[in-house]
Amino acid sequence: MSTRILLVNVNTTASMTVEMVDAARRVASPDCEIVGTTAQHGVASIDGYHDEVLGAMAASSAIQENAGSFDAAVIACFGDPGLEASRELSDAPVVGIAEASFVAAIALGRRFSVLTTLDRGVPPIEDVVRRHGFRERCASVRASGLSVLEADASPEAAADELERIGRRAIVDDGAEVLCLGCGGMVGLRERLEGRLGVPVVEPVPAAIALAEGLVRCGLRTSKSRGYKQPEPNEYR
Amino acid sequence: MSTRILLVNVNTTASMTVEMVDAARRVASPDCEIVGTTAQHGVASIDGYHDEVLGAMAASSAIQENAGSFDAAVIACFGDPGLEASRELSDAPVVGIAEASFVAAIALGRRFSVLTTLDRGVPPIEDVVRRHGFRERCASVRASGLSVLEADASPEAAADELERIGRRAIVDDGAEVLCLGCGGMVGLRERLEGRLGVPVVEPVPAAIALAEGLVRCGLRTSKSRGYKQPEPNEYR
Amino acid sequence: MSTRILLVNVNTTASMTVEMVDAARRVASPDCEIVGTTAQHGVASIDGYHDEVLGAMAASSAIQENAGSFDAAVIACFGDPGLEASRELSDAPVVGIAEASFVAAIALGRRFSVLTTLDRGVPPIEDVVRRHGFRERCASVRASGLSVLEADASPEAAADELERIGRRAIVDDGAEVLCLGCGGMVGLRERLEGRLGVPVVEPVPAAIALAEGLVRCGLRTSKSRGYKQPEPNEYR
Amino acid sequence: MSTRILLVNVNTTASMTVEMVDAARRVASPDCEIVGTTAQHGVASIDGYHDEVLGAMAASSAIQENAGSFDAAVIACFGDPGLEASRELSDAPVVGIAEASFVAAIALGRRFSVLTTLDRGVPPIEDVVRRHGFRERCASVRASGLSVLEADASPEAAADELERIGRRAIVDDGAEVLCLGCGGMVGLRERLEGRLGVPVVEPVPAAIALAEGLVRCGLRTSKSRGYKQPEPNEYR
Amino acid sequence: MSTRILLVNVNTTASMTVEMVDAARRVASPDCEIVGTTAQHGVASIDGYHDEVLGAMAASSAIQENAGSFDAAVIACFGDPGLEASRELSDAPVVGIAEASFVAAIALGRRFSVLTTLDRGVPPIEDVVRRHGFRERCASVRASGLSVLEADASPEAAADELERIGRRAIVDDGAEVLCLGCGGMVGLRERLEGRLGVPVVEPVPAAIALAEGLVRCGLRTSKSRGYKQPEPNEYR
Amino acid sequence: MSTRILLVNVNTTASMTVEMVDAARRVASPDCEIVGTTAQHGVASIDGYHDEVLGAMAASSAIQENAGSFDAAVIACFGDPGLEASRELSDAPVVGIAEASFVAAIALGRRFSVLTTLDRGVPPIEDVVRRHGFRERCASVRASGLSVLEADASPEAAADELERIGRRAIVDDGAEVLCLGCGGMVGLRERLEGRLGVPVVEPVPAAIALAEGLVRCGLRTSKSRGYKQPEPNEYR
Repeated sequence: MSTRILLVNVNTTASMTVEMVDAARRVASPDCEIVGTTAQHGVASIDGYHDEVLGAMAASSAIQENAGSFDAAVIACFGDPGLEASRELSDAPVVGIAEASFVAAIALGRRFSVLTTLDRGVPPIEDVVRRHGFRERCASVRASGLSVLEADASPEAAADELERIGRRAIVDDGAEVLCLGCGGMVGLRERLEGRLGVPVVEPVPAAIALAEGLVRCGLRTSKSRGYKQPEPNEYR
Repeated sequence: MSTRILLVNVNTTASMTVEMVDAARRVASPDCEIVGTTAQHGVASIDGYHDEVLGAMAASSAIQENAGSFDAAVIACFGDPGLEASRELSDAPVVGIAEASFVAAIALGRRFSVLTTLDRGVPPIEDVVRRHGFRERCASVRASGLSVLEADASPEAAADELERIGRRAIVDDGAEVLCLGCGGMVGLRERLEGRLGVPVVEPVPAAIALAEGLVRCGLRTSKSRGYKQPEPNEYR
Repeated sequence: MSTRILLVNVNTTASMTVEMVDAARRVASPDCEIVGTTAQHGVASIDGYHDEVLGAMAASSAIQENAGSFDAAVIACFGDPGLEASRELSDAPVVGIAEASFVAAIALGRRFSVLTTLDRGVPPIEDVVRRHGFRERCASVRASGLSVLEADASPEAAADELERIGRRAIVDDGAEVLCLGCGGMVGLRERLEGRLGVPVVEPVPAAIALAEGLVRCGLRTSKSRGYKQPEPNEYR
Repeated sequence: MSTRILLVNVNTTASMTVEMVDAARRVASPDCEIVGTTAQHGVASIDGYHDEVLGAMAASSAIQENAGSFDAAVIACFGDPGLEASRELSDAPVVGIAEASFVAAIALGRRFSVLTTLDRGVPPIEDVVRRHGFRERCASVRASGLSVLEADASPEAAADELERIGRRAIVDDGAEVLCLGCGGMVGLRERLEGRLGVPVVEPVPAAIALAEGLVRCGLRTSKSRGYKQPEPNEYR
Repeated sequence: MSTRILLVNVNTTASMTVEMVDAARRVASPDCEIVGTTAQHGVASIDGYHDEVLGAMAASSAIQENAGSFDAAVIACFGDPGLEASRELSDAPVVGIAEASFVAAIALGRRFSVLTTLDRGVPPIEDVVRRHGFRERCASVRASGLSVLEADASPEAAADELERIGRRAIVDDGAEVLCLGCGGMVGLRERLEGRLGVPVVEPVPAAIALAEGLVRCGLRTSKSRGYKQPEPNEYR
Repeated sequence: MSTRILLVNVNTTASMTVEMVDAARRVASPDCEIVGTTAQHGVASIDGYHDEVLGAMAASSAIQENAGSFDAAVIACFGDPGLEASRELSDAPVVGIAEASFVAAIALGRRFSVLTTLDRGVPPIEDVVRRHGFRERCASVRASGLSVLEADASPEAAADELERIGRRAIVDDGAEVLCLGCGGMVGLRERLEGRLGVPVVEPVPAAIALAEGLVRCGLRTSKSRGYKQPEPNEYR
C-alpha cells in the first residue's frame, strides 16, 4: 500500500515545483508517491511578509482542493506560510519545510544556522524559528544577498555566496549544522558539506522524511483544539 | 490638520464595521477621522487559523487599496492577521488590536489575561501573544464558549460568561488586567470593570489610541529590513 | 474637558524639565495640558543604579504630592525608576519613558536597539528591557561614551556619536528601529532619521502619546494585586 | 540497498528489547533492518537520575561496540540518556526517543503533554524537554503512579491510568497531543487515541521514523564542535 | 583574622534587626562577626513596591555610611531592594536574601516555591525571581494572607498557614524546596521541614552563608560596568 | 564539631585531586575537613560529552562508596557530570563546581563569561549553563584552544591565553565577571584579576564555599520528587 504525499509549491513558478518534486523523489521511499501542485494565484517567488500571505492562501487552497487524496502534505516554502491553517483543514499530517529542517538539524548538532537569500528574508525566518519554538537551538540566520532568480541564473556564484555565509555562521556564530533557507535551494547539500565540513539540511527532503515518518507511525493531525476543523462559516 | 485612521474590518460583516468605527470614534481625538472598511471577500467572522489567512488577505488588500489616504491603520481582528504584511505595504504606521491591547494592559498591571469566545480561539491568541513577545506578561487566555454570533444574540448572557471567566483569570491565574480578545466585544468595559474591579481593555479603542499616538510622534514604519516595501514581484 | 499630564523629571536639573515639557507639548493634543515637576532632592542627572534609587524616591514623592491633580503621569527617566511604586500610589495611569519607547518601537519594526550615553548605563537599560518583558524584541543596547552633560555642551558631536552607534546597531545587530535611551535626548529624531533611514523614537513624546491614549480609553491603574494602594504603614 | 538501525535498549531487560524491536519493525520501511541490543550492565528499568547515568554508560558502550555496523541508532529510553555522548562517538545519526516524540508531537498539535510512570520520573522528563529546547511547546508532564513492572503486570489498569492522566492533560493543561513517556509503553496508541480523541505518540516508532528519515536524506552527525570525535584519551 | 558582615535591616523595626542578627549568628562561622543596622527612615515593614523604594534608600544609605567597615553586606528584605545600587557603592560583596535563598534552593531540589505574607507581595517576589534570572527554577510564589505583624502576634497560626500553602506548593506546583519569603520568618525551618518533608530555606541564614563564602574566596564586586562606582554627581 | 566535605575528582589523575584539595583547603573554614577522591575508572581528563558520562559514573560511585561519611560533597568537574544522580544518592548536599561558580558570579556582576580549554568544550558548558537555568546571566563561553595537559605544561602561556579570551569576553560580550571553566584551573585568580580588572571565580573554592554554607544552614537534599532515593532496582 503506497503513501501519497502532496508537495505544495505556494508560488506560481511551475519549474520550481518540478525541481522540488525531483528532490523529494530522491529521498522518498519506493512505495511513496510525490504529487506536486503549483499555486494558481500569487507570486513567482516568496520574498517577505506580504508574499507569505499570498503563499498562505495558496497553501490552504491546495489543501482544500486536494482533500482526501493524500496521506500527508508538505508546504514547500521556508516561512511555512499557512501551515497552521492547512493543519486545521486536514486530518492527514501537514509539514512545513522550515519546521522539518529544524527538526533534522537538532538531531545532528547542538545549534544550527539558516542560510537564506535576501537580507529582507532574515526577519521572517527569525519569526518562523520563534513561532515553532526553536529559538534556543538557532545560532543565527544569515543572508547571501542573492535573490532566488539571481541564484538560478548563476548557480556557481550562489554556491560561493552560501559557502561564505555558511563559514561565518560556523566560525562566528557557533553553528554546527546549516539549514538551506529556501525551498528552491536544491542539489547543494553535498557540495556545501564538502566545502564546509558540517551537515547541510535541504528543506524539501527533510520535510518528505518527516511527513513519511508520521504516516508510517499512523499519526494524524490533532483535532482537539487549535487545529479543529473550521467552523461552518459563511464564505463570500 | 486632521489625522485620518483607516479601521480595517477583515471580516465581511458590515454591521461589525459600524460598531467598531463607533467605538473608535468615542476615543479618537476631535481632529482624528476614522474611516472604516469591510472585507470584500472572506468570512463573516474570524474563528481559527484558516479564517485568519482570509483575514490577512483582506487586511493587506485594504492597505493596498487605500494606500496614501491614511495616516495610520488599525487591523481590527484580535489575531492581528496580516499585520506584518500590512506594515510591509505601508509607510504609515499599522497597528493590530491584539498588540495594542497588550501594550495598554502592561501599563496598568503586572500581568494580563485575555478573554475570548470559543475554545478553539485560545491557541491562536496564545500564538499572537508569543509572536509579539508578551509571553512573560500574559497570565492566561480563557474562552467563554460563546461564539461571536451567540454573544451578539444574547449580550447579557455573554457579559455573564465574560464575568465568570474573568473572575477565574483574576483568582486562579493572577491576572491584574483583562483584555477582551475579540474586535466585536464593544461597550463592555465599564460593566465588566464594575463587576470585577480590574481594568478591562477594549481592543479597538486601545488600537486607535496607539495609532494616533504614533502619528502625533511623527513616527513611520521602518523600511530597513523586515518591513521593506515588497519586491516588484510578478503577480498572477 | 482637558487632560492633564504630570511630567516627572526625577533629577534636579530644572532646565531639563523645561526641555522635556517643551518636547511633550509638541506631541500632546490641543486639549492636553503638560505640567512639569523637578526633583527637590537627588542628583543632577541619573547615571547608574544608585542614582536610580534617588530617582525612584523623587518619582514616588512627586506622584504623592500631586495626587488627584493629574489624569496621567510620566516618569521621565529612561530606567523608569519608581514606576511600579508610582503605580501603586496612583489610580491614574503612570507611564515610564523606557516602556513607552519600547511600545512605540515594536509597532514600527521587528527589533529595536537603544542608544544611550555612558557604557555604565548599558546594564541598567538591559535590566529595564527585561523587567518590562521586551527582551525578545531588543537587538542591542549601545553607548556613545558621552555623558549627558558632554552631550549638552557639544550637541553636534553628540549627534555624530549617536549616528555612529546607531549605524552599528542597524548593520551589526539587525535593529530596524532606534530608541534614544535618555530623557534629555530631545529634538534629535528628524536629524537621525534623515541620516540613518530608520525610525528614531524619542522617549518623552512616546510616553506622552501612551499616557494620553490610556486616558482617552478611560483606563486606570489596576488596584487588584501588585499595584494595590500601599498598606497604612507607619512612616518614620 | 537496505538501511540498518541499531535499537539500543539501555536497561538489562531482554524482553523489553524484543517488544521494542517488534514495535520498531511495525513502522520501519521494508528495506530497513532493526537490530536490537540489550545493556550488559545496569538496571532492569530506568527510574530516575542515577539509573539514567547507568543508561548513558550502556548507550555509549553499545554505540562503540557496534561502530561501523549501523546507518543510524536509536537510544530507547525516554530520558535520552547518553544521547550527546553517543553522537560524539558516531558519524551515523543517533536519535533519542524523547526528542523524536517531541518532534512528532509538534507537527500534530500546538502543545503536547507527556504521560509517564512514577511521579519521580516527572523532573527528569521536564529536564529532557528543556535540554532539547521544547519547553514552549510542552503543556505538562504527568505521572500515572504505576511503575513499569506494575504496568506490565496489569496492562488494563495501566491503560486506564494513562487515559485518566491523559484526559487531565487535555482538559486542564491544554494538551492537543500526548506523548507516551516510556520506551516500554508499546501497543497503546490506538486504544488511547480511541478513548481520548487526540493523537498519541509512541516513542520507539517515532524514533525509528526520524532515524530512517535522516538516513534517507544522507545526513550525518556534525563533527565540527560539540559532537567532535572524543580526544584520544587515556582510559583506565 | 575575623570577617565582619553588615546585616542591613531596611525597615525601621529594631526588634526585627535583633531577631535577624540572632538568626545570622546561629549560622555564621566562629570568626565571623555580624553587625546589624536598622533603617533611620522608612516604614516599619516592607509591603509592596513603594515600601521597597524606601527600603532601597535605606539599603544604600547603610552601605554608604558603613563603607570600609565591613567585608560583606546582606540586604535583609526579601525583595532585595537597592541591591544593585548597594553593589555600585561597595567593593565588598553585597548579597540579597532573596537571591541567596534561590541559590540555596536550586542546590537542593529541581524547583522551589516561595511562601510569603500578603497576596500583594506575590508580584514583587515574582519580579525579584525574574530580575535575578531564576524563573525557570521557580515553581510558584504563594501568600498566606497573614501580614508580618499578624504573624508576629500569632506565631502558631502563622506556622499553620505556611504549612498549608507549602503543601499546596509541593502537591499542586511540584515544588521540591520551599523558601520563606520574608526576612522576619525566623526559626521556622525545622518545624516546617518536620511537617512537610522538604527542605525549607530561611533567607537570612542563606545570605550569611553566601556572603561569608564570597569573602573566603577573596571575591569582590565587579567594578567594570554595571556596578562601577557612581559618577561624582552633584547631590542635592 | 567539624564539617567534612568530600571532593570528588571524576577523572583518574591523582595529581589533579591533590591540586584541587589544596585549593579547597585554602578557602575552607578551620573546622572544615576536605577529603579528596580520585576516579578508579575513567579518563585522565574530561573533554566532551562521552568523557562526562564516564565522569558521571565516577561521581555517583564515589558518592555511593562514601555514603554516610561526609556532610557535603563537591563534584569537581566543570560540566557537573552526575550531579543530579549524586543528589538522588545522597541526603547530604552535593554541589557542582559549575553551578557554584555561576552562583558566585551573579552575586558580583550583572553578566559572566566562562573561559575554558578546548573549543569542543564550549557546547557542553553552554549546556550546563542552560541546565542550571543561568542562560540570562551568561554573556558567553570562550575557549583558549589549550588542552588541560598543554596548560599544565606551559602555565605562563595558558595564563596569557586566558587573559586574551577574558579581555574579549569583557570588551565584546559585556562580561563583568569571569568564571574559570575547568576544575584544574587553580591558582590563577589573583593574576588574572590583576591583569583584567574584574572578579575571576575559581570553581573549586566557589563550590567549597557553597557546600559549607549549606551545611551551616542545616540544609539537606530534597527527597520529595526528583532527588528521591533510587528505587530498589535489580543491578547487573
